[in-house]
Amino acid sequence: MSFDRLIEKIVKMQNPTVVGLDPKLEYVPEYIRKKAIAKYGKSFKGAAKAILAYNKGIIDEIYDIVPAIKPQAAYYEMYGWEGVKCLAKTIAYAKEKGMYVITDGKRNDIGATMTAYTAAHLGFTDIEGDMLQAFGADALTVNGYLGTDGISPLLEVCRENDKGIFVLVKTSNPSSGELQDRLLDSGESVYAAMGAMCEKWGAEAMGKLGYSSVGAVVGATYPEQLEQMRKALPNTFFLVPGYGAQGGGAQGVAKAFDENGLGAIVNSSRAVMLAYKKEEQCDEHDYAKAARREVIRMKEDIVSYLPKISLE
Amino acid sequence: MSFDRLIEKIVKMQNPTVVGLDPKLEYVPEYIRKKAIAKYGKSFKGAAKAILAYNKGIIDEIYDIVPAIKPQAAYYEMYGWEGVKCLAKTIAYAKEKGMYVITDGKRNDIGATMTAYTAAHLGFTDIEGDMLQAFGADALTVNGYLGTDGISPLLEVCRENDKGIFVLVKTSNPSSGELQDRLLDSGESVYAAMGAMCEKWGAEAMGKLGYSSVGAVVGATYPEQLEQMRKALPNTFFLVPGYGAQGGGAQGVAKAFDENGLGAIVNSSRAVMLAYKKEEQCDEHDYAKAARREVIRMKEDIVSYLPKISLE
Repeated sequence: MSFDRLIEKIVKMQNPTVVGLDPKLEYVPEYIRKKAIAKYGKSFKGAAKAILAYNKGIIDEIYDIVPAIKPQAAYYEMYGWEGVKCLAKTIAYAKEKGMYVITDGKRNDIGATMTAYTAAHLGFTDIEGDMLQAFGADALTVNGYLGTDGISPLLEVCRENDKGIFVLVKTSNPSSGELQDRLLDSGESVYAAMGAMCEKWGAEAMGKLGYSSVGAVVGATYPEQLEQMRKALPNTFFLVPGYGAQGGGAQGVAKAFDENGLGAIVNSSRAVMLAYKKEEQCDEHDYAKAARREVIRMKEDIVSYLPKISLE
Repeated sequence: MSFDRLIEKIVKMQNPTVVGLDPKLEYVPEYIRKKAIAKYGKSFKGAAKAILAYNKGIIDEIYDIVPAIKPQAAYYEMYGWEGVKCLAKTIAYAKEKGMYVITDGKRNDIGATMTAYTAAHLGFTDIEGDMLQAFGADALTVNGYLGTDGISPLLEVCRENDKGIFVLVKTSNPSSGELQDRLLDSGESVYAAMGAMCEKWGAEAMGKLGYSSVGAVVGATYPEQLEQMRKALPNTFFLVPGYGAQGGGAQGVAKAFDENGLGAIVNSSRAVMLAYKKEEQCDEHDYAKAARREVIRMKEDIVSYLPKISLE
């Protein structure tokens, strides 16, 4: 249980980063798009086939050096159920290649419904007595606005099936402070209160490497809050979005980590997916190799600010 | 724009209720399940086919007396992409029958990603210049924890395409108060602050009938907060879950409405879907007729506590 499997991969690869696969059809190189559209027309099926080929190309080039991918559900739902099928196939392909998969769905609901989301994304669904796996990710991002009832069903599957969740604490977007930075009458902020809930929920699902199954999303764009949360939540593993395209720098991101260079994983999406458009004179056929170059650049940038990543 | 279309349907039918279609395979009568499983095996496809037939049966029996359905995304995702295809087909079928569709997805994310969710559930997706509709609901439930950035993309599509959103304010579950009832240093609760944000967001997207495109989810299980929010948020239309199975009564629910019997729509899911199991001696082939009977009972229960529903 917990994030032990992820932490072990990070140590082995000396790479605390995750690639966000948030594909839009227009990100896909023309040669892939044209082929799919020629075969399936300007349809969700055509788009989904193109995106799947594009995702697989990137996974093939990064799976040996990056521990995890984080597909963002919204970018698949945008292409209808065909897009959601592409999400399922992307997850399955990454897992075949040995990658850890974090589905970024920010799901949330009351207990009974959260049980259904848990089955969907991390667990199994009962079909007349057969237990089938729907999406089968290793971890899921969730929103804790509904409190403990909406988290408990996830904790059970985390314990039983070795899965993890990341609860939104302090998000990377400009307006995240409108609610999250408001102070409670206790003097703590809303995000700090949410962080404290993560630490409490996690106490029921601790791993062997110092972190529980209940992680937190804390944005790279707010390094002070990142540092504050790292100190306040010693057993909570962080997923850190906002590095790169959203403006978070490696020096700030370093505050998410503990003294062993652990405790966090940093996400980059667009900068990796669109690396081939940013490089000078990169042929679009080399989009996945450009993604690999960006992944290496990001990793070197981030680890240059960290102590050696180690389980000691 | 806004909820005017929904309000007009409510007035015409004199029925401020919505049926939640949150199907589990085990809710489906055996004769439908057996047929689908015989044809497609114990598979997500078999489950999705059975659920779609079940949903259509209910819609056929209620579309002339109930203004809206509210499918809960979790119960479809649980059956993988085949389940999500069933969601799309359920929405399309209900719309064909003239029903208003609220997708209960509680989606939330940063701006760029929320744009993708908006396209997915309420808008259109650009496929090489063709604009295609993915799920095409009329309204979507969302979580406002990320602030204005995560809401703005929705407001645009609400204005342009006559859609609505419901933001979680005070949810119906037992632990909703853990965060939502906490007091801010201003003395107001977190849910009241979220409610005030709804009213502010809605000011940019007002309808002609007194309510904006930005609604709020306020649970039937907390009638005091329902009354408080109705007074504080005069332009915010309410979606009220928690009636029936979760314990909210019609007398409490009445507090969600304004002096014209408008301003809210009350949801019931399990009590309708499983009415045939609760009635004495109901043949399972009559599950949809039992759903109709329960819908009528619920409507009569709720309107008995309201003034005559009217646009005056």
